[in-house]
Amino acid sequence: MPADDPRAEAEEPPLHDVVAVGNALVDVLARTDDVALDRLGLAKGTMELVDAVRSQTIFDGMGPTVEASGGSAANTAAGVAALGGRAAFLGRVADDALGRTFTHDIRAAGVTFDPVPAPLDGADTVTGHCLVLVTPDAERTMATHLGVASDFDSVDVHDGHVASARVLYLEGYLWERESAKAAMRRAIDAAHGADAAVALSLSDPACVGRHRREFLELIEEDVDLLFANEDEIRLLFGDGTSFEAAVARVEDSGILAALTRGARGAMVVTPTGAIEVPAAPVAEVVDTTGAGDLFAAGFLAGITHGHTPDDAARLGALCAAEVISHVGARPQDDLAALAAAAGLAID
Amino acid sequence: MPADDPRAEAEEPPLHDVVAVGNALVDVLARTDDVALDRLGLAKGTMELVDAVRSQTIFDGMGPTVEASGGSAANTAAGVAALGGRAAFLGRVADDALGRTFTHDIRAAGVTFDPVPAPLDGADTVTGHCLVLVTPDAERTMATHLGVASDFDSVDVHDGHVASARVLYLEGYLWERESAKAAMRRAIDAAHGADAAVALSLSDPACVGRHRREFLELIEEDVDLLFANEDEIRLLFGDGTSFEAAVARVEDSGILAALTRGARGAMVVTPTGAIEVPAAPVAEVVDTTGAGDLFAAGFLAGITHGHTPDDAARLGALCAAEVISHVGARPQDDLAALAAAAGLAID
Repeated sequence: MPADDPRAEAEEPPLHDVVAVGNALVDVLARTDDVALDRLGLAKGTMELVDAVRSQTIFDGMGPTVEASGGSAANTAAGVAALGGRAAFLGRVADDALGRTFTHDIRAAGVTFDPVPAPLDGADTVTGHCLVLVTPDAERTMATHLGVASDFDSVDVHDGHVASARVLYLEGYLWERESAKAAMRRAIDAAHGADAAVALSLSDPACVGRHRREFLELIEEDVDLLFANEDEIRLLFGDGTSFEAAVARVEDSGILAALTRGARGAMVVTPTGAIEVPAAPVAEVVDTTGAGDLFAAGFLAGITHGHTPDDAARLGALCAAEVISHVGARPQDDLAALAAAAGLAID
Repeated sequence: MPADDPRAEAEEPPLHDVVAVGNALVDVLARTDDVALDRLGLAKGTMELVDAVRSQTIFDGMGPTVEASGGSAANTAAGVAALGGRAAFLGRVADDALGRTFTHDIRAAGVTFDPVPAPLDGADTVTGHCLVLVTPDAERTMATHLGVASDFDSVDVHDGHVASARVLYLEGYLWERESAKAAMRRAIDAAHGADAAVALSLSDPACVGRHRREFLELIEEDVDLLFANEDEIRLLFGDGTSFEAAVARVEDSGILAALTRGARGAMVVTPTGAIEVPAAPVAEVVDTTGAGDLFAAGFLAGITHGHTPDDAARLGALCAAEVISHVGARPQDDLAALAAAAGLAID
């Protein structure tokens, strides 16, 4: 429209900086050791999907637990809100105690969440939960029982929220069921229709292994912004691809990508080249759960508020450093204050 | 029996060092500030008993939460077990998600717990929970909805456990209902019949205010070991009693008492005098929830394993220091290792 069109002046800013879509999960965390992981048949550092029976068996073998809301994209939404950004979350909970906890916590974090709770109907109508076993080296091993989270479908996609967003952020973990994929397709179409950018997190190496072709197609056709760690991005382009080769492939694709490498920091890949950003210092790494989620939070909050990609990555590194310095996958310190102290505040 | 009686050789040691009786509660913790406490109508530093409706109102006004098993005497039992002692817990849970969490966590901590879960029957059949609001000064303000915990009665007293104990440890918080008092009376009688010592924690100043006369009678007739903080012991002997006067009154009573004074450490009062024990150093006080409970754990574990009262108090101070250095009322570090490093290990 022409610059003197009065609608240009009156245009409302998008209601949300980020609308995140993912599995609504409550984390059940316990400290453990390698011997206990072996006994429970869990492969360290992985996320395994488990049914209700196996979830109960693992829970029975865990030490004293702490429950705290989690879910990868939900953690990211909570981080965006903690930085002062406007975030909404889409995901499915059941009408049970865990579902009420999840709903309370994400709203209390300042995130818009208007779920349609699944009515209670049999043993499998439970809010998803993720058993998180943290070893002394701060590594986390996860066993997730998705419960109703995996029933995510089009009824859970709030078109209004998606159309109001600057960025639609999708969690790769959701790519398990046809109904969820259809719902995501709908959200992507709504985002394209509203000029929102589409961001995808590859979530987990096993997840990439299962959905490689679909992720490659998505990146080719729909995704503007990609989040992955080193293992995930290498796996995406085929077993044995070096990190450098993967970076070159991402450059060729023409999208923006933020690739995390743990203590080695992150690499921001743009169509015109890659920029390395160091990890932020941490006094003691206690629990790496949520590191990638909070990196994404800082990057998304930055990029939707005019930060350059490398400053956005610095903000992501700062948020990741906070979340790995305590048990639990959501921020505890005042992220906005931390960002301000580092000269990276969002307006 | 005569020393050469073969039964003297064959006598089994007591099965439990400590059998703790108290409200089975799951803590729901959130960080907050003084403004939010005012808005919720909560008096900082106190524990208020609330009904289900008020509990929900406060929960709705709280920030993101973390759930972790709690309950004063249950925390103490978990601490005794973490030190390598043998502990059992008596208390009532409902057959609901919180009850299953509580049961899992205390068993996983190594504590014997064989509850008779209350069957689900209406909205008030819920496992008790304690909303804990932690302010930046590490002080905690609590609103407890007892749920079925307050229905504790004789059916929940496992005579075999009590008779097997060196110490029966009673939480003052339980003195709210006639049925619970009758159950406690039964446990005390079982302890006396089995030569177990009876320990009482005064729990909370408001609790002392409500049950002063009964606590004084108990101390006169049944209690061998008393735990209280400075405010509680002063209030017990009447408004306006100085700490010094209260100590003198305890000395006269002829019982053993461990009186805690926060950062000023503890005073162990014996019939032959009082001994001051300093607080153990803490890098950063994060959340004082459970400080008194874990002091009691260390003291009880020490005293049941031949430590002198002042060494037992040192062990109590060490356990209290651990629990106030993180969010949550149960130990996270290896208490037995901490005790060993300080030369205070129990055998």
